[in-house]
Amino acid sequence: MTHVLGDPAPDGLLDAFWAYERALMSDDLAMLDRLFAQGHDTLRGDAAGLLVGHDQISRFRGGRGGAPARSVLQVHVRSLSPAHALVVAITELERGGRGQQTQVWRRGVDGWRVMAAHVAVPAPAFDSRVWRVVGDPLARPTGSGPLDGETVAVKDLFAVAGHPVGAGNPAWLDQARVEPSDAWAVRMLTGGGAAVRGIARTDEFAYSLAGTNAHHGTPPNPRAPGRIGGGSSSGSASAVSLGHATIGLGTDTGGSIRVPAAYQGLYGLRTTHGAVPTAGAMALAPAFDAVGWLTRDAELLARVGGVLLPDTAPRPVREVVAVPELWALAEPDVADAVAAFAEGESARQESWDLTDLESWREAFRVHQAAQAWATHGSWLRNRLDVLGPDVRSRFEAAAQVTPDEASAAATGVAEARQAIRDLVGDRVVVLPSASSVAPVLGSDPGRVRDATMRLTCLAGLGGLPAISIPTTTQEGLPCGVSLIAAPGRDRDLLAFAVDHAQRLRP
Amino acid sequence: MTHVLGDPAPDGLLDAFWAYERALMSDDLAMLDRLFAQGHDTLRGDAAGLLVGHDQISRFRGGRGGAPARSVLQVHVRSLSPAHALVVAITELERGGRGQQTQVWRRGVDGWRVMAAHVAVPAPAFDSRVWRVVGDPLARPTGSGPLDGETVAVKDLFAVAGHPVGAGNPAWLDQARVEPSDAWAVRMLTGGGAAVRGIARTDEFAYSLAGTNAHHGTPPNPRAPGRIGGGSSSGSASAVSLGHATIGLGTDTGGSIRVPAAYQGLYGLRTTHGAVPTAGAMALAPAFDAVGWLTRDAELLARVGGVLLPDTAPRPVREVVAVPELWALAEPDVADAVAAFAEGESARQESWDLTDLESWREAFRVHQAAQAWATHGSWLRNRLDVLGPDVRSRFEAAAQVTPDEASAAATGVAEARQAIRDLVGDRVVVLPSASSVAPVLGSDPGRVRDATMRLTCLAGLGGLPAISIPTTTQEGLPCGVSLIAAPGRDRDLLAFAVDHAQRLRP
Repeated sequence: MTHVLGDPAPDGLLDAFWAYERALMSDDLAMLDRLFAQGHDTLRGDAAGLLVGHDQISRFRGGRGGAPARSVLQVHVRSLSPAHALVVAITELERGGRGQQTQVWRRGVDGWRVMAAHVAVPAPAFDSRVWRVVGDPLARPTGSGPLDGETVAVKDLFAVAGHPVGAGNPAWLDQARVEPSDAWAVRMLTGGGAAVRGIARTDEFAYSLAGTNAHHGTPPNPRAPGRIGGGSSSGSASAVSLGHATIGLGTDTGGSIRVPAAYQGLYGLRTTHGAVPTAGAMALAPAFDAVGWLTRDAELLARVGGVLLPDTAPRPVREVVAVPELWALAEPDVADAVAAFAEGESARQESWDLTDLESWREAFRVHQAAQAWATHGSWLRNRLDVLGPDVRSRFEAAAQVTPDEASAAATGVAEARQAIRDLVGDRVVVLPSASSVAPVLGSDPGRVRDATMRLTCLAGLGGLPAISIPTTTQEGLPCGVSLIAAPGRDRDLLAFAVDHAQRLRP
Repeated sequence: MTHVLGDPAPDGLLDAFWAYERALMSDDLAMLDRLFAQGHDTLRGDAAGLLVGHDQISRFRGGRGGAPARSVLQVHVRSLSPAHALVVAITELERGGRGQQTQVWRRGVDGWRVMAAHVAVPAPAFDSRVWRVVGDPLARPTGSGPLDGETVAVKDLFAVAGHPVGAGNPAWLDQARVEPSDAWAVRMLTGGGAAVRGIARTDEFAYSLAGTNAHHGTPPNPRAPGRIGGGSSSGSASAVSLGHATIGLGTDTGGSIRVPAAYQGLYGLRTTHGAVPTAGAMALAPAFDAVGWLTRDAELLARVGGVLLPDTAPRPVREVVAVPELWALAEPDVADAVAAFAEGESARQESWDLTDLESWREAFRVHQAAQAWATHGSWLRNRLDVLGPDVRSRFEAAAQVTPDEASAAATGVAEARQAIRDLVGDRVVVLPSASSVAPVLGSDPGRVRDATMRLTCLAGLGGLPAISIPTTTQEGLPCGVSLIAAPGRDRDLLAFAVDHAQRLRP
């Protein structure tokens, strides 16, 4: 039974309201389109963001496959003018819980039309695009220290005692054992005072930079709604962006910390290869796999480093070098943002000969593929169909790498490693964390992946630490500036980021 | 930086908008009150429900201790009439995520005032009033059967392998061991095909019927916003109401399944004492403790019974008896609803002599208290201050029960058990599940508890199964009708409820 409350409704308004409700429940797109005002001004907002204009709203409706079944419990009407009325409805969802729908209606020659709507439905138990398991806490701190009060989103590659590792793939999860103990990094974080907030989604087997997952959906990017959030440490990154956790623990093989950091405006560190034990974390390509983490501020990023990194003697950053040939690999808006950062840091510009970059990137790609197949091929060989299309195509290509190709790639990687370490030397080098801002949802990930890998592979090949510092493009979208340095200088990069953040503070 | 978009804003509107925003951020209640329109018509809605009238809104603001810190990213203005405007703002919360605020402003002689507001902020990782831990799933099914596809909210008294039992009390949780294996009921449910969705909050040590928890807050009652949800199986009940899980596993010592079922309009079964093993579930008062569960429909309630209950021969319900003296113990709106139910079932009216009821209830109370102290006294003795006030006062009273009082109560319980079993006989008896609809949040729980216990203690004392079937009062609020029967007739009650629900179906 619906209660209609408030002002007497103007003629025809409630008929239009109920026609809209029926159209919503039967997913009658033509009627819904008709009852929303035409033009660029019409508004519709919900938890996923605000749509502006009839076209955007119509496209959204066409793609969502209907609204959840509900009944209308209360309707509050307020007459605003002869041609305008407010209708606030309280709804009860068949699946449980109550929602609210606020509509401003306008009467034109063709009758009443919605000019603005704000729709709220009850939140699900949790956002399963972001988390697989989450708790208050999921695992308690085992000690007290610099991370007291902090909460960790653990990428679903790290063992958390009492839980299986899911690796972003339901078939893997189904057969995974319950882990008897925590991964090394998890043990250190909880020993340092942090609680485990939960186990966060990852791209399948971490073999992607997009942050999309064919099984669990794409974790949201709250800093750039409508765009992907980046991966493969996708759930960890979104959890930190959304304020669900303060530390996102992840891994970075080819950019899986730096890319989500850039897309979502977070701080992120990919550690020196081998500096932080990967024990208890599922491998992808051990030659490149590195532990990393994401935070909303530089100071906490550094505090986590204090717990996870070897206790090296500080060597303050003396020389910051900017390489325009590297910016040129990014899209102009990102290149401009990186140039502005470099200028702000009075970086010395230096020209690099990048003739070999294409062959370096190819050596990285093939070596990563060969190692990924060596790691997962025996399990995946007869069940590639359990993977989503994007990751599947990558593993299929990996399966085709011949021993000769793998061996040549390994040699190429060794050569590139030395060349890159020589280029970086004792300095800190500034480059884009990703080649672009976060691509819009649904766009082809392939082109962006290639362009971004050209940048991210440098730290991977060199085994170097890389920190991503957030900045924004002129348009106001998040992007990332990476700083790389010689192996073992993780703490120096962290100190630099803290110092940079302090200098920015008003 | 804020982007102002849309129509040119009418004179003074944006000044008022920003004054409101500043007042919100500084929790300037006087200014907020001033900027919201006076009168009974003003609306303010958020995820907790819709407030109607300036007074309600002002009271809410006074009690919440400020809004979360945020910045305004976009402001969309639509001019509706010379005296009305719509302002939609996109906000970014300091703690993470984006929100939307939709306001309708009206210009009066004293300037612009908000006449309606709809506020949406990003959902937290999960509702920690409802859940302690939640997953997709938290624990997988271990078999396939009648519960395939169902999800269970496990009251935080039952062991779930890999997790400690929290019992609704943080100090207990802090020292609890990780459970090596599942409680019996959890094992049976997952063996029957259900997944564990999560571990749901409970009133502390289950020693309450209110559903409030001094440490974790009060799980919401989505069917009666602004009212308590009932306990002690409070999280399990809210999880089912909200659609977060389909089965709420709980316990019922003095009404902890039936009361939340009544308050939230759910189906609930308290099983025959001893019929379902309590192995792996924390005890409160073993003489009365019974496993139970809650669902949104009768058919699933029965399906769970098929998995958890002994396989008894069916004895269809022949005679339904209604006892007006029992209805009279409830408030008139609930008594009327129960009478209507009884009439619908053509129940035979029968008069009971309830002279002994007060002494039965007292025997129940004292025996429960003595057992609760026997169960928890050794741990609580020196740390009663870890409890919230309501549960603490109950345990303090329990500590004072003398051996003589306990012994007299045990005798009283045995006598009552026989008397109640004789009264019920082979019939099914209809009575209110609770003495009232759900009390409003913040009201004194004591009086309601006493009145409700007078009704719920009958099944407890008799060791009888009791099913709660949802109905509504004339005012439209949820309430419950309990049916009790002889020990062992759980399945007969479930079959009755399924049959009743089918008859109601249009």
